Amino acid sequence: MLWIVAHPDRRSLTRALADEGVAHLDELGHDVRVRDLYAMDWNPVVDAADFAHDPAERLLVGEAAKEALRRGTLSDDIRAEQELVRAADVLIVQFPLWWYGMPAILKGWFDRVFVNGFAFGVTDPDTGTVLRYGDGGLRGRRAMIVTTIGAREAAFGPRGIHGELEEVLFPIQHGIFHYTGMDPLPPFAVYGADRATAHDFARAAARLRERLSALADIEPVRFRTQNGGDYDADLVLRPHVAPGVTGLAAHYLTSATERHGNLQSVSPVPSDLGEGRRTPVVSP
Amino acid sequence: MLWIVAHPDRRSLTRALADEGVAHLDELGHDVRVRDLYAMDWNPVVDAADFAHDPAERLLVGEAAKEALRRGTLSDDIRAEQELVRAADVLIVQFPLWWYGMPAILKGWFDRVFVNGFAFGVTDPDTGTVLRYGDGGLRGRRAMIVTTIGAREAAFGPRGIHGELEEVLFPIQHGIFHYTGMDPLPPFAVYGADRATAHDFARAAARLRERLSALADIEPVRFRTQNGGDYDADLVLRPHVAPGVTGLAAHYLTSATERHGNLQSVSPVPSDLGEGRRTPVVSP
Repeated sequence: MLWIVAHPDRRSLTRALADEGVAHLDELGHDVRVRDLYAMDWNPVVDAADFAHDPAERLLVGEAAKEALRRGTLSDDIRAEQELVRAADVLIVQFPLWWYGMPAILKGWFDRVFVNGFAFGVTDPDTGTVLRYGDGGLRGRRAMIVTTIGAREAAFGPRGIHGELEEVLFPIQHGIFHYTGMDPLPPFAVYGADRATAHDFARAAARLRERLSALADIEPVRFRTQNGGDYDADLVLRPHVAPGVTGLAAHYLTSATERHGNLQSVSPVPSDLGEGRRTPVVSP
Repeated sequence: MLWIVAHPDRRSLTRALADEGVAHLDELGHDVRVRDLYAMDWNPVVDAADFAHDPAERLLVGEAAKEALRRGTLSDDIRAEQELVRAADVLIVQFPLWWYGMPAILKGWFDRVFVNGFAFGVTDPDTGTVLRYGDGGLRGRRAMIVTTIGAREAAFGPRGIHGELEEVLFPIQHGIFHYTGMDPLPPFAVYGADRATAHDFARAAARLRERLSALADIEPVRFRTQNGGDYDADLVLRPHVAPGVTGLAAHYLTSATERHGNLQSVSPVPSDLGEGRRTPVVSP
């Protein structure tokens, strides 16, 4: 298993939860490798140097990456991460939600490590079909987001102002995990993280241990697969599939009701521990 | 106006389009400042040093940022960007779509520059209401994404496999632009960017000039506002508002039909210029 975590403060709620989670997986007998991107001083910026690319030549990122992968000339830091991803059966991706997405240092881990030919851009040797969305370079793995969020759960619910969490995370759940062939598990969220007390932390840690104990049995969020017959040659849903539905919702096989059920099962800091108890013990 | 652009290669389609766009705005008499993040070697990683924060103290990012802003102790690079944002009436945010979002160097521009107390976390002095979603620290500005995408347009359409572009960009359009009080314009997308020929580039540049000429008249994408009466005290849509609708779609005032109309009006590289003409002149 691979646990990737990004937070600038070693004493944060994020990193305290990571410690809890990793220790618990360890107790359960799993082999867990931790990538603490801040502690590693990870470089998140894609650059010609990643690909041993001649700076005099124009840089087509996708092509340069694929070529460097083939030749074994990707930079050492990228190759080390790819080895760990290859060896992992589960990826836990943990971060505080910043601007409705990953902190830059973590986004740049995906930008640099999940290159063309490794995570995607892989074809079926028999048919020549590009493997994407339900199949791909990372097939056979499960991936789960663990995220700490300042807002309250209701505001990320099915009709909450921030957008339903699962759809806000669609670019990661569908665009990264499902795209590369991994099974995305329902995100594990800790809400009200800016206001978490010691009691809140204990509850969140207990929920996380419970979730991790069940990792192998959790039903993934199911999206339609590229090559399962729902999409036409232009990768557009065929008319008889979810007729009339547009937007992100059209690509889920797991129903909205089931997704909300998932979210509720990872229930938040209860609403009675709120503004009245603003004694943060750890930063999100 | 402020034009923020992120691509590692000076000779890329992205940066060639930026040059075209900036030159055109200049011709139109606008004062445009360019932030070429790769050329600036922008640091995208939020860290205690941003806030002159005592490393012995726990770092609560939101609080530390707000305090540093108040005291004027944010790091120089952040303050310089904030000055430019304050002075701008329009922000153009240009990037190749990597993993369905911004390259890390650009995500980290928002992470570091759009801090608590500047872009958000601002309250109405009279009522004490937090200003968010339709109002906020950056009210009165327009913001527009310009993005180059390897995929074809149909696959980002209302029923395309990647998810409808506008909803894939929801974390930026709604979560950053609308959240901070800016008016998000329909994204300007160039599809098939990995395969763009000189002819494709000329067409994309012409479309971009046309779009920029109309900047002041373009109808923004309209989202519901936090304080407009549609949300209750928990920031959840009231039952009579878009009854039964869940997910991202519930927060748009602009109808799906109008949004698709917008996207079609920024029509893509036509599909007859495709695989058959793979002579890239510029990288996306």
